[in-house]
Amino acid sequence: VTSLSSSHGNAAEPTLRLSFAERLRTRWAAGTLLCVGLDPELERLPAVVRHGQGSIGQILLAFNAAIVEATADLVCAYKPNSAFYEAHGPEGLDALDAKRGDMANTSRLYAQAVFDTYAADAVTVQPYQGQEALAPFIERADRGVFVLCRTSNPGAAELQDLLIAETREPLYLRVARAVAEHWNVHGNCGLVVGATWPDELRAIRAAAPELPILLPGIGAQGGDLAGSVRAGVDRQGQGLLVSASRGVLYASAGADFAAAARREAVRLHDAINQHRR
Amino acid sequence: VTSLSSSHGNAAEPTLRLSFAERLRTRWAAGTLLCVGLDPELERLPAVVRHGQGSIGQILLAFNAAIVEATADLVCAYKPNSAFYEAHGPEGLDALDAKRGDMANTSRLYAQAVFDTYAADAVTVQPYQGQEALAPFIERADRGVFVLCRTSNPGAAELQDLLIAETREPLYLRVARAVAEHWNVHGNCGLVVGATWPDELRAIRAAAPELPILLPGIGAQGGDLAGSVRAGVDRQGQGLLVSASRGVLYASAGADFAAAARREAVRLHDAINQHRR
Repeated sequence: VTSLSSSHGNAAEPTLRLSFAERLRTRWAAGTLLCVGLDPELERLPAVVRHGQGSIGQILLAFNAAIVEATADLVCAYKPNSAFYEAHGPEGLDALDAKRGDMANTSRLYAQAVFDTYAADAVTVQPYQGQEALAPFIERADRGVFVLCRTSNPGAAELQDLLIAETREPLYLRVARAVAEHWNVHGNCGLVVGATWPDELRAIRAAAPELPILLPGIGAQGGDLAGSVRAGVDRQGQGLLVSASRGVLYASAGADFAAAARREAVRLHDAINQHRR
Repeated sequence: VTSLSSSHGNAAEPTLRLSFAERLRTRWAAGTLLCVGLDPELERLPAVVRHGQGSIGQILLAFNAAIVEATADLVCAYKPNSAFYEAHGPEGLDALDAKRGDMANTSRLYAQAVFDTYAADAVTVQPYQGQEALAPFIERADRGVFVLCRTSNPGAAELQDLLIAETREPLYLRVARAVAEHWNVHGNCGLVVGATWPDELRAIRAAAPELPILLPGIGAQGGDLAGSVRAGVDRQGQGLLVSASRGVLYASAGADFAAAARREAVRLHDAINQHRR
């Protein structure tokens, strides 16, 4: 599970009056399409953080807090990837701000875990089981649901590029169209499309002109920032969450890591805006 | 993430000398194709357990331990579903026996979380990102990897039944064939097929004659036990993990819950064996 949190939140006051989609649009209108992945790897943390006091959860939390403080005005969302926290067991998950949730019924447990227990504003989900299986996520109209569409891993084509007999379109375009035309009944759905595939991204944007697209893969995975931004923005030159992780988080291994993260976020922010039309 | 543990394990001695696949075959040879899902819902637990002492994690663990003790000789595997634990936050995850894992590199984090941190013997995974994305799971030859193929939810057909242009076969059969012919290089892969679709299960068994098939959906979801067992067993009359959860876990709400769970497990065990050929 990957979850997203709007950078516009403030722990001191309730922010649920605006939905995730509304807060995202507010950030986009302010010119920030950058999304920072909060995927801390312990051995890559600056020594000043890694050797700090407290549990693993507290160390990860301190690092995330410093990164957020240094970049909040430059980004539209933060995206913690739960695998990076689960790898440390319950101690690591403490860093994701977990609160005990009340349970309602079985089919809603996953949605409750991510939206209530971990208080995420949005989540990425797999499409394979269809819209009906995702109803507990999609029905939470105030949260965001990003469906994997064309992923950035090298072997993504194996199933995602299979041509569907009925329409002669690849499976990933069928998914894009299904989400845009049928799943998005509450206006809270989006797609995940790797920045390594600008041509596919262009076709997806044409099939889903209104959907937010989460775009991982720039930086470490070698994605094409300029090509992806040009291919992926919507008619307003918005609609993207351009996600970067390691390039920002580990911009410096020294005590200046937060300032260096900010410099890299500024660079990405400006590069993104240069290629919006 | 759903993980599986062979019922053959013993915490007091190392069990990794035999792989998950080998231990599974040992249990099948002993005539046990039943798998019990350990998906405890707090409000459905017997009062004697629910009002016991300790944290939520300790209460869930005590319940699971009583169920395992009452049914271990009747089943081939236990299948805890992490959503039922994550819904309680880190406290709930304590019940899954988490140990802190060492992290190696990013692509292996999910596999490490489930196999090392949570010490699962096997895991269920989504096929959409292709074999390459699952390599960190598949490369762990001593563990099992069950790939979602034809799921038991009502809307499963939306994508899984789409016909692929090249071969005119539905997507789920393409997945079954890919896993059987290409992904299963270490002999540790299996498929997940809902017990609600005996016809599809028969076609999948024909496409993947050797793969273990995890079969959820009997009982609460209305699956056809007799039809599914007949359609799903391999040439040896084995090859299935017939998964039941609520019918076993909540067979009684009283202090006799463990004995009642055993009675229901015996009933399912015998019914399964009646329909093996």
